[in-house]
Amino acid sequence: MSEPDRASVKAALTSQRIETPSWAYANSGTRFKVFAQPGVPRTPEEKLDDAARVHEHTGVAPSVALHIPWDKVDDYGALASYAQKRGLRLGTINSNVFQDDDYKLGSVTHPDPAVRRKALDHLLECVDIMDATGSRDLKLWFADGTNYPGQDDIRARQDRLAEALTAVRDRLGEGQRMLLEYKFFEPAFYTTDVPDWGTAYAHCLKLGPKAQVVVDTGHHAPGTNIEFIVALLLREEKLGGFDFNSRFYADDDLMVGAADPFQLFRIMCEVVRGGGLQERAGIAFMLDQCHNIEPKIPAIIRSVMNVQEATAKALLVDRDALESAQLSGDVLGSNAVLMDAYNTDVRPLLAEVRQENGLDPDPVAAYHRSGWAQKITDERKGGQQAGWGA
Amino acid sequence: MSEPDRASVKAALTSQRIETPSWAYANSGTRFKVFAQPGVPRTPEEKLDDAARVHEHTGVAPSVALHIPWDKVDDYGALASYAQKRGLRLGTINSNVFQDDDYKLGSVTHPDPAVRRKALDHLLECVDIMDATGSRDLKLWFADGTNYPGQDDIRARQDRLAEALTAVRDRLGEGQRMLLEYKFFEPAFYTTDVPDWGTAYAHCLKLGPKAQVVVDTGHHAPGTNIEFIVALLLREEKLGGFDFNSRFYADDDLMVGAADPFQLFRIMCEVVRGGGLQERAGIAFMLDQCHNIEPKIPAIIRSVMNVQEATAKALLVDRDALESAQLSGDVLGSNAVLMDAYNTDVRPLLAEVRQENGLDPDPVAAYHRSGWAQKITDERKGGQQAGWGA
Amino acid sequence: MSEPDRASVKAALTSQRIETPSWAYANSGTRFKVFAQPGVPRTPEEKLDDAARVHEHTGVAPSVALHIPWDKVDDYGALASYAQKRGLRLGTINSNVFQDDDYKLGSVTHPDPAVRRKALDHLLECVDIMDATGSRDLKLWFADGTNYPGQDDIRARQDRLAEALTAVRDRLGEGQRMLLEYKFFEPAFYTTDVPDWGTAYAHCLKLGPKAQVVVDTGHHAPGTNIEFIVALLLREEKLGGFDFNSRFYADDDLMVGAADPFQLFRIMCEVVRGGGLQERAGIAFMLDQCHNIEPKIPAIIRSVMNVQEATAKALLVDRDALESAQLSGDVLGSNAVLMDAYNTDVRPLLAEVRQENGLDPDPVAAYHRSGWAQKITDERKGGQQAGWGA
Amino acid sequence: MSEPDRASVKAALTSQRIETPSWAYANSGTRFKVFAQPGVPRTPEEKLDDAARVHEHTGVAPSVALHIPWDKVDDYGALASYAQKRGLRLGTINSNVFQDDDYKLGSVTHPDPAVRRKALDHLLECVDIMDATGSRDLKLWFADGTNYPGQDDIRARQDRLAEALTAVRDRLGEGQRMLLEYKFFEPAFYTTDVPDWGTAYAHCLKLGPKAQVVVDTGHHAPGTNIEFIVALLLREEKLGGFDFNSRFYADDDLMVGAADPFQLFRIMCEVVRGGGLQERAGIAFMLDQCHNIEPKIPAIIRSVMNVQEATAKALLVDRDALESAQLSGDVLGSNAVLMDAYNTDVRPLLAEVRQENGLDPDPVAAYHRSGWAQKITDERKGGQQAGWGA
Repeated sequence: MSEPDRASVKAALTSQRIETPSWAYANSGTRFKVFAQPGVPRTPEEKLDDAARVHEHTGVAPSVALHIPWDKVDDYGALASYAQKRGLRLGTINSNVFQDDDYKLGSVTHPDPAVRRKALDHLLECVDIMDATGSRDLKLWFADGTNYPGQDDIRARQDRLAEALTAVRDRLGEGQRMLLEYKFFEPAFYTTDVPDWGTAYAHCLKLGPKAQVVVDTGHHAPGTNIEFIVALLLREEKLGGFDFNSRFYADDDLMVGAADPFQLFRIMCEVVRGGGLQERAGIAFMLDQCHNIEPKIPAIIRSVMNVQEATAKALLVDRDALESAQLSGDVLGSNAVLMDAYNTDVRPLLAEVRQENGLDPDPVAAYHRSGWAQKITDERKGGQQAGWGA
Repeated sequence: MSEPDRASVKAALTSQRIETPSWAYANSGTRFKVFAQPGVPRTPEEKLDDAARVHEHTGVAPSVALHIPWDKVDDYGALASYAQKRGLRLGTINSNVFQDDDYKLGSVTHPDPAVRRKALDHLLECVDIMDATGSRDLKLWFADGTNYPGQDDIRARQDRLAEALTAVRDRLGEGQRMLLEYKFFEPAFYTTDVPDWGTAYAHCLKLGPKAQVVVDTGHHAPGTNIEFIVALLLREEKLGGFDFNSRFYADDDLMVGAADPFQLFRIMCEVVRGGGLQERAGIAFMLDQCHNIEPKIPAIIRSVMNVQEATAKALLVDRDALESAQLSGDVLGSNAVLMDAYNTDVRPLLAEVRQENGLDPDPVAAYHRSGWAQKITDERKGGQQAGWGA
Repeated sequence: MSEPDRASVKAALTSQRIETPSWAYANSGTRFKVFAQPGVPRTPEEKLDDAARVHEHTGVAPSVALHIPWDKVDDYGALASYAQKRGLRLGTINSNVFQDDDYKLGSVTHPDPAVRRKALDHLLECVDIMDATGSRDLKLWFADGTNYPGQDDIRARQDRLAEALTAVRDRLGEGQRMLLEYKFFEPAFYTTDVPDWGTAYAHCLKLGPKAQVVVDTGHHAPGTNIEFIVALLLREEKLGGFDFNSRFYADDDLMVGAADPFQLFRIMCEVVRGGGLQERAGIAFMLDQCHNIEPKIPAIIRSVMNVQEATAKALLVDRDALESAQLSGDVLGSNAVLMDAYNTDVRPLLAEVRQENGLDPDPVAAYHRSGWAQKITDERKGGQQAGWGA
Repeated sequence: MSEPDRASVKAALTSQRIETPSWAYANSGTRFKVFAQPGVPRTPEEKLDDAARVHEHTGVAPSVALHIPWDKVDDYGALASYAQKRGLRLGTINSNVFQDDDYKLGSVTHPDPAVRRKALDHLLECVDIMDATGSRDLKLWFADGTNYPGQDDIRARQDRLAEALTAVRDRLGEGQRMLLEYKFFEPAFYTTDVPDWGTAYAHCLKLGPKAQVVVDTGHHAPGTNIEFIVALLLREEKLGGFDFNSRFYADDDLMVGAADPFQLFRIMCEVVRGGGLQERAGIAFMLDQCHNIEPKIPAIIRSVMNVQEATAKALLVDRDALESAQLSGDVLGSNAVLMDAYNTDVRPLLAEVRQENGLDPDPVAAYHRSGWAQKITDERKGGQQAGWGA
């Protein structure tokens, strides 16, 4: 790589932004058990305090996604100011229409119009909150679906879904977007109303430019080629963002890059190829994962770094050599160009980028030295720890 | 079920049509071995002779899909006459752009424009054949894809694909359609250029009303809910037809209904629900399967019967009771309505339908009694047995 | 089927026993939400009251599995008497070493010997309870595993597991058994210490005749042929029992037979083939499933009936015709023998069996008529509903 | 890593041996098409010539696995001499009981005793060949299984399998072993007679120390944790060797390490952990893969290098730091130790090892410079190219 290239790679890495989710700082678990951890935040503000640590050490995580109602506050303007004082801003608003008893059989696709109305009202309230926080994106994930064949009418549920999405779209203001997330299964176990990118795409296409698809890397059938979907959505200008995490089996929500770092690299390659790193593409790079057994803040720092490392490798791909090998039908040659970038140890490069931006080259070590873990363990006593779902 | 219902169920079963594929009468196998069978046809005409047996005994399989070049003849008009004399007609034309050495790295998505041109010319030739045979549908399945990350540019291949599909669309005449098939993987092992219904749908949408998606029941990721896709495509008026077969693992091409009869029933329920049985819906119900180790003609008869049985059960669903239970949120009740139809033994009903249409109530037994198997074993000696791929 | 056959089929269906799990009567859910239902039991005794309803209407569910500590009581003898008065007996004891904060990184395989000791003590306590309840079987399922590569040493964990299992085996009394359950994944997301039948089998082989493998139908990798495993374990005399449920995706714990009734039939065919229905085989047929959105008691009745229907069909297989077709290499013929039994509507036969045993032919309808649902909704107010996990 | 460590890592890398399969040098393909390549060998001797190129450039691939009858010759002693003159030796003998018309319904598990006898005779003949070639290992992979439920008796087939394996075991001479391979599915599509490690293990256990399990990395259900199986088999002293390849979907037989290099690293970590790299462990490291679209010799060189790179990384894991983090329950710390080794670019280290052993640091480049590709393209004209299966 020639020096100018190195400079542009560093510039891209410096300007990359990765949003962390407020709920990742809180307790989480499986249906079997939620294990509590010491020092876990008890309020939205304490979540922001932790998020500020991640940004302080990585320099690329200045925004925090909120989850409503988990992060409900009386005054969102005040929360936004609180964030700003810590070098942060409030990011994507995540709606929640799955944790109320009324939603047992669905929310916006529920057979009962009263439940649908309630769910829609929540979504519209989220747009109100966006107005207050200045957030650009509303992320919509629906747990809606059925557990048993025959339980409800698949097609009627699509009609109901389309109706709700249209109402949300109509409510969005200038510069606001809705990101529709799909998920293969869970918590619905037979049908899921938005199970794949095709369904999300079909809806977003009809909803127009304010509606974009969000790719959660853990939400696919076994064996699905995620980078292919990313390439397609970028080609269709319908990729709104990522929910990053990783998994070995189902939606395991492990640290992004932990299960298959090569896959993450291939995804970032398609992002780079499709112009998705450029600001005008409007791609939101978000983490959405749980830290059930590992300490949360260092796990999030590690996750941010994993995205950075995959991005760095993707940026190092010799695009000219790759295209040339591809066009000449050189199977091994083109694969070798890609693998050459992947096999590069980019940690020194990222350490350099950090130092040039006034950061410690090793964010995890810096965090451990900071004393923050001990401080929150000592101070956050009493009160109710925030949890995934609360 | 009241008597009028029974009459309409029987009418629907009587008018149902299932197309059989010429290649299912020929030898087939896995990459490990193709086992030859006695009496296998050596020419397109002999394939039609066998197909006529299937139609004679089932009464619902009057059309035969051709595969070009496997069924290439000099005079398609003559072949159509040959079919007609046996009570058959020529059905869907299946293109083949995967068995020429030039197609090692793809056909219409190949990096080399000369190969793309050659592949497109074949597709256009298939439309010429449709003109001669009077076929309505051109089925497009592409083996195109890559085996290794980096081997080719995912997005550029989509551009090339779109270009070829557009050219085919422009060539189609009045009343002709193109059916785009998707497949999860194989023979490409890393990316497949049309891997899922979303990709096929996105292309068909741009191509307009002459382009429809075809669902091959064996071409999905593990766990994919196929009936959901069927419901969606019907809702979007983009379902062109089915390639029926069944599988336990990958694209195993077993007899339809053999691996998961309940799934086939659920698919047919969505077809009935979405109006897909009605002629004006234009859904092509085709078999596309291989009989590697079992005798071919009785296997195809059994497959046709399996589709009939699933259809009969789907028609028996008490739609009013189902909708009522669904709207009231009665999970167990609505599931029970569906299962009640599924658990019904519809074989007597179908035997009755056959007898009312002048057929033997037991098509498999009638075939075995007919002596056809012995006849073709005796007569079809010498020459080259037709095979999947020839 | 000749009349004597019919008599023996009925006899087999009359003598079949299916154990229901106490926790299926309680609330359950996913990590996203536990939806409360009206009338859910608040105590182990109320769970037994509900189980008695299931047995009253089905006649084949006289035993109830307990889960420790969820069903912990001071006096197990009194609980056994309580059961006996309702026509029930206490069945398998299920241990729980996954819901204590100490078990975050494992129980019997935890790196810390103190945690291992605590877990083992719980298992030994469960044997004490077996002594008091007169239970034959201790079911062992371990959530133990790791979430991240490198987190712990795979092999060392096997050593620790073997040590604990040996200690339990040594503690078992005359006529007591340990059933080792395997599970593909969840809640551990990278390694699970007993992920497949092979691992369970290897341990049970070393532990000797008191240790048997239990097959949970929901605990396999996608596409796994479960009936094959059943056939193998029966051949090895290492099948101890079943945890029945069904799933479309992962461990979804739907009603047994709801997702793939043909698979359940094939499993029961292997049970019949391997002599597993006979009492001396000692196979425990247990339900282990959750009813997150459907009413629990009728869902359990339906599940019991689904097992009965699959068993009835398996018993109807013409074994002589099947063997004859198999030995002659008649692929379609042997499959047809099997499908002939599967396609039979066995509901009239089971209705007959029930009536001959003094039961209502339609257990679900009888339950709905009984008024029990209304009664428990009215009476079980106040107190804490029991939940999966409590 | 301190210098002494570096020396021992290099020593381990220098002494590692990877066997290449004769059939990987020949044409191969899918059921859809076998694409011919220029210069492909026409005889076993020409396959050895190509294998000699791989060993010349890598220095670690001195042995070649044969496949009978594909590599059948009149004089195996002469073939062994031919190999020896090129610095090679003949390795594992691979039996083939799947490409004869008699094997349509199975080989050693076939319902017909005459077919079983024929298959067994072939296996015994393979041991004769081992006597002649001096091979240590007989690799047994059976395509045996069924395509349809009911087709044959699962348990009876196990009995037949056990009988054949016992006969082979009894025939083995001093220092000879049988390696039993399992495969999830294909070419059998419903049951496979040895579908998983548990089945292979159960048989090998009864067969005694001469029978070992071989792990083909492409032969597992989706999501299976292969390194877990490796760890278990090493603990049981029942791991005989590897068939390396990689896959994204089913048994795609791509270059090892191409689809998931992190998985290959984790597998090699367990090999190192379990002492499997040491000669006394007797683990056979073999490639078993196809090169359908890429040039064969450089693909095999790349594959050998991929195994070397994964091994190098596994050797670089700081075992003391890992164990210490594991025992202290430090989830992130122990994972970080592993990832630190994985993220290291080991290509310079391997280049160094090669140079110290008198090899070119870049085997692929050296091969391309050698002119061998052009030479075989020019010289190997006429005759029949060898193919996978011939």
